Formats: sequence, structure tokens, C-alpha cells
Amino acid sequence: MKLAVIEGDGVGREVIPAALQVLDCFDLPIEKIPLELGLGKWEKTGQAITDADIEILEDCDCILFGAVTTPADPNYKSVLLTIRRELDLYANIRPLKPIKGIKGATGNTDFDILVVRENTEGLYSSIEEVGENEAWSKRIITRRASERIAQVACEYAARRANHLTIVHKSNVIKADSLFLNTCRDVAHTHNVIHDAMLVDAMAYDMVRSPEKYDVVVAPNLYGDILSDLGGALVGSLGLLPSANIGEKQAFFEPVHGSAPDIAGRGVANPIAAVLSVAMLLDWLNRPEQARIVREAVETSVNENIKTADLGGNSTTAEVTEFLVYYVQSN
Amino acid sequence: MKLAVIEGDGVGREVIPAALQVLDCFDLPIEKIPLELGLGKWEKTGQAITDADIEILEDCDCILFGAVTTPADPNYKSVLLTIRRELDLYANIRPLKPIKGIKGATGNTDFDILVVRENTEGLYSSIEEVGENEAWSKRIITRRASERIAQVACEYAARRANHLTIVHKSNVIKADSLFLNTCRDVAHTHNVIHDAMLVDAMAYDMVRSPEKYDVVVAPNLYGDILSDLGGALVGSLGLLPSANIGEKQAFFEPVHGSAPDIAGRGVANPIAAVLSVAMLLDWLNRPEQARIVREAVETSVNENIKTADLGGNSTTAEVTEFLVYYVQSN
Ligand SMILES: CC(C)[C@H](C(=O)O)[C@@H](O)C(=O)O
Ligand SMILES: CC(C)[C@H](C(=O)O)[C@@H](O)C(=O)O
Repeated sequence: MKLAVIEGDGVGREVIPAALQVLDCFDLPIEKIPLELGLGKWEKTGQAITDADIEILEDCDCILFGAVTTPADPNYKSVLLTIRRELDLYANIRPLKPIKGIKGATGNTDFDILVVRENTEGLYSSIEEVGENEAWSKRIITRRASERIAQVACEYAARRANHLTIVHKSNVIKADSLFLNTCRDVAHTHNVIHDAMLVDAMAYDMVRSPEKYDVVVAPNLYGDILSDLGGALVGSLGLLPSANIGEKQAFFEPVHGSAPDIAGRGVANPIAAVLSVAMLLDWLNRPEQARIVREAVETSVNENIKTADLGGNSTTAEVTEFLVYYVQSN
Repeated sequence: MKLAVIEGDGVGREVIPAALQVLDCFDLPIEKIPLELGLGKWEKTGQAITDADIEILEDCDCILFGAVTTPADPNYKSVLLTIRRELDLYANIRPLKPIKGIKGATGNTDFDILVVRENTEGLYSSIEEVGENEAWSKRIITRRASERIAQVACEYAARRANHLTIVHKSNVIKADSLFLNTCRDVAHTHNVIHDAMLVDAMAYDMVRSPEKYDVVVAPNLYGDILSDLGGALVGSLGLLPSANIGEKQAFFEPVHGSAPDIAGRGVANPIAAVLSVAMLLDWLNRPEQARIVREAVETSVNENIKTADLGGNSTTAEVTEFLVYYVQSN
């Protein structure tokens, strides 16, 4: 099993080593392939990611990714989007689940949402033209992409509360009716109970009543917005892991960015990266080990071994040390 | 002064008469032109809005609108979008301000945001094609539309905290850099302090720290999503008024929809419609009367004369009666 390891920029260089320490507790047959991508590489070489990098990644089974800093330069090619597209990692899975002991912005800790975000099209098509006075982008919805993301969403739903919510805006954007109807058909075939929500109403209702939702499937940008919103409900973006899953490969990353403001000070919260390792373990079909990692995270919070963003005063190293200790003794 | 009055469907038929009762307290020289539009009209005539209706509206100075129900029928032409487009009501103004005595989803009541939503382009271009297996929509950003919405936003900012936040997603959608840069230039010219937020980060931060924002300018759909989200922070969509403003005309409407589930039972919350009348009064340059209407709303909540959505047990009629009483005695 080959795991590409991309720390990236900023806090990526702190949280990925932390997450690897946790992963290493299990002594799995994993060959790690370190890869430098992102702003650091761009500043040195003028490229943030090359074709050769993609080839290396194509040869790996999975990827653990920290975060990259995106400069304002229009020539900069987004590392994240390049990898998602080139490896056709079409399902972006983002669990929104409170961690015991941490209260989010609304105080509601009684929900467990899985955002299944379509990861290849919509407004992320990159088909666009930017002129001096006018710019347009082509937003694309296909039956094929809608079908396969709905399939993934339904498979998750079947293992959870069997309830799928389809997010759309077909009252304005007619293309969303293709997404909506395709998802409905797939849900019907899978015997998954389903309903639909307009994206604006969904933003409203997720804040008010997140407990009403189970699996939420959404076109690319809606999923992007709703999962960040979910970060506020869970308590911090520093807590959200994610997986980008394709036919054969998968890519795991914290939802948070490279946070240049706090990078290099040893205070970054490793939880999102560590929970991304838990998702990696699930993907490797090691649910028991994934469970222990999640339990370790919960216990660290309970024991008040927390970084500053959670109101604690532990360093990244201290939190990691505890997590490793917990995993090793369980 | 000619005011077109469109009750529309569902609770529109309850909250607009309520709002008019409040407006009538002031004995202004307003000629009311009632107009039936929406699902009701569509069921009777096969059209929800006609060219003749548009002509009537073009001849009015302003419009008070309730809500319409949009059927799933793809032939149905959205009344709201048709009016916004035909009258070129390019600025959708949505104040997100808590009402004293009402706590929103996060408990934070210490914010005062004005969402200024571009109302004519973006994903609302209606340039799209929906096929069996593929559908696309053209999302349009122009310098002209970005400029005029930024202008409006800056004028508001100058009368408020002089702080403008520009919402975009230019790290993925390059067209948003046209919106972003144009807004920046306008803010610079107007000496308005400004910053920028990615739309996903903005959804996150608005929930966590709404007090950080003053005027928020956004492309069409982002503004749609963020203002609904703001409804959860204020406490209920039943509290949010809005104005759609053009060169010469303006259109006032509650942000909420027609709520068919509670329509006809006399329990709809009239506050959003009444606060839309306050925005109308502001637009008519009657700030003192607008102030009294807002004070009436606040007092009704204080006196616990509230509809069920706010945890009260008053009817629409009872709330309205109080508001009229308050306005008349002040
Ligand atoms: C950094 C950006 C390109 C990315 C996205 O928009 O997908 C991020 O917001 C995310 O959610 O992973
Ligand atoms: C009903 C719908 C067309 C409308 C919109 O998307 O603009 C609504 O959500 C709004 O915010 O006024």
C-alpha cells in the first residue's frame, strides 16, 4: 500500500507529521511517498504541481494531504483542484459530527451529518473566460456525475439513518433539476428515504435544525459552502476531516486551510488531520483502528488537552503525544 | 405615488394586508394598485405574470410583494425573477439585524449586517441548456453590474460603519476576480474600508462572528444563501424584510416564502412584511415613520404579542392590531 504524503504549506507541515505519528502506531504495511507540492514548491520552481507529480500520485493508492497556500497570482494552478480532477476523485466526503465536549456556535451537539459533495463539475468546471468588462463561467451538471455521487451518498445512507437530502436550486437554475431528478432516481432504486432542499433554505435549516439531516448530497459549490458552515456548527474548521474518493484511489485532507497566521508556532490543531487518518483507516477497511483514533481524539478533548482554538493551551506536540499514548495503550 | 400591491400566494395574502394596515396609519398620498400574480393566477389563466402586468408595474413607483408559490412545472416563469429582471431592480438589500427580545440560533444578538446582493446576473442569467444527460448554465459577471452594486453598497457603508466585505470565490471561479477587483476599486474611490471573504469562509464566519461585519456585498447566489443563513442568526426568516432597488423604482418583500403549510390559518408572522414597509418608508425618505414602525415591531415582541414561530400564541390579526395601535399612538 503506497501512501503519498503531502504536507503542503503553513500548518500542513505541522498537522500532517502529527497525523502520521498516530497512523504509525498501527504498524500497517504502508509505504510512504513524501511529495512537496504547493506554494513552497512554486516559489522555488515556478510550479506548484507538475505532471511528474501527478504520475507519482497516480501510482499511489491513497494520499494524505495537509493544506496549501494559494497566492493571488492568476497563473497559479490550484494543487487541490488539480489532484481532484486528474485522479477523478469524484466524491468529497465531509462528516459533520460534534466531538463530545466541544460546543459549536449554536450549542446544538445532537447531530450527525455526512456531506457528500460532487467533486468534479458544477462551477468547478474551469470552463470560463475572464475579460476586462465581462466574465463568464460554465456550470456543468451531468447525469453521469450526478448518478455516481448519488450512488455513493446512498451507500453511506444505507449504513446510517437511510435518509438522503438532495440540495439544489432548481427553482432558479434549471440544470439543478438534472441533479435533483437523477439523485431522486438513484435514491429510489436504493430504497433510501429522500427529500430535497433548496440550497438557501438548507443553509438556514442546517443552522437551526441540523439534527434533521443524515446524508446530504450536493453539487460542488453548495457542498463547499455547506460543509464550511457545518464547521461552525461542529465548533471549528480545525475539527473537520474529509475524504476525496475515486474509483480506486482516495485522498484525505483536513477541511481547514494552511492558516499562515498561526503557522510555524506549534499551536495548530491536529484533530482535523488526525480524523482524516481515521477516514483513511475506514477506507483501508480497518474500522476498529479508525474507532480507536476517534476515541483518542474525544478523550484528549475530555482531558482538556486542547489547542488554543478550542480554548485550551496545549501545543500541537502535546496533543499528538497524548493521542499516540492513547492509541498505543488501547 | 403609485404602489403596486401583490399579495401573491399562501401567507402573502395574510401578511401583505397586515403590512398595509400599518402603512395606512400614515395617511400618505399613495395610490394602491392591486395586482394578482403567482400560482393563483397561473392556475386560472396559465400565466403567473403577463407582459401587461409588467407594463402596469413599470408605471408604478414601487411595489409591495408578499410571496408566491412556485410549482415544479418547468414552464412556469418565476414572478419574482421576472419582475427583478424586467424592472432592472439591481440591488437586493437585506438587513440582518436582531430584534430586541428575540434570540437567533447562536444566541449572539450583537450584530447588524446589511447584505447587498447583486440582483441581475451571476447564476441568475437564465442562459442555460438542460439536456437529457448534460445541462449547463452560464454564470455571468460584468464590470458594469459589479460597479453599480458596489456603489450602492458603499453608499450604505458610508452611512453605517464604513466597512465593506466583498464575498467571492475567485480562488476557483476566476470570473469572481472581476467582481472582487471592481468592488475593491469602488470602495477605494469611496474611501470605504474593505476586505474580502471567500463565500465558504464567509458562511463559516457569519455563524461564528457576525459582529465582525457591516455591509456585505455579494454576487447573486452567494447573497441568496448568506441572507437566508442570516435569517437563522436573526431568529427566523419570518423576521427578514428586503428591498429590490433600481434606478427609479423599488420592490419590497419579506425574504420568506409563501409557506403553504401554515397559510390560511391566520398565524403567519407579519413582521417581515411590516419591516419591508419600514424599508419602503425609508425609500420614500420618511425615516421618522420608518423608525416608528420598527419600534412598533420591537415593542410587540417585548409585550409578548408574538406569533407561534416566535414561541408566542398571537394571531396575525392580533399582532397587526397591536402594531397599528402603537403606530397610531406614536
Ligand atoms: C481551497 C479551495 C479550492 C477548496 C474548494 O473550494 O474546494 C476548499 O474550499 C475546500 O473546500 O476544499
Ligand atoms: C424564490 C427564489 C427565486 C428567490 C431567489 O433565489 O432569489 C428567493 O430565494 C429569494 O431569496 O428571494
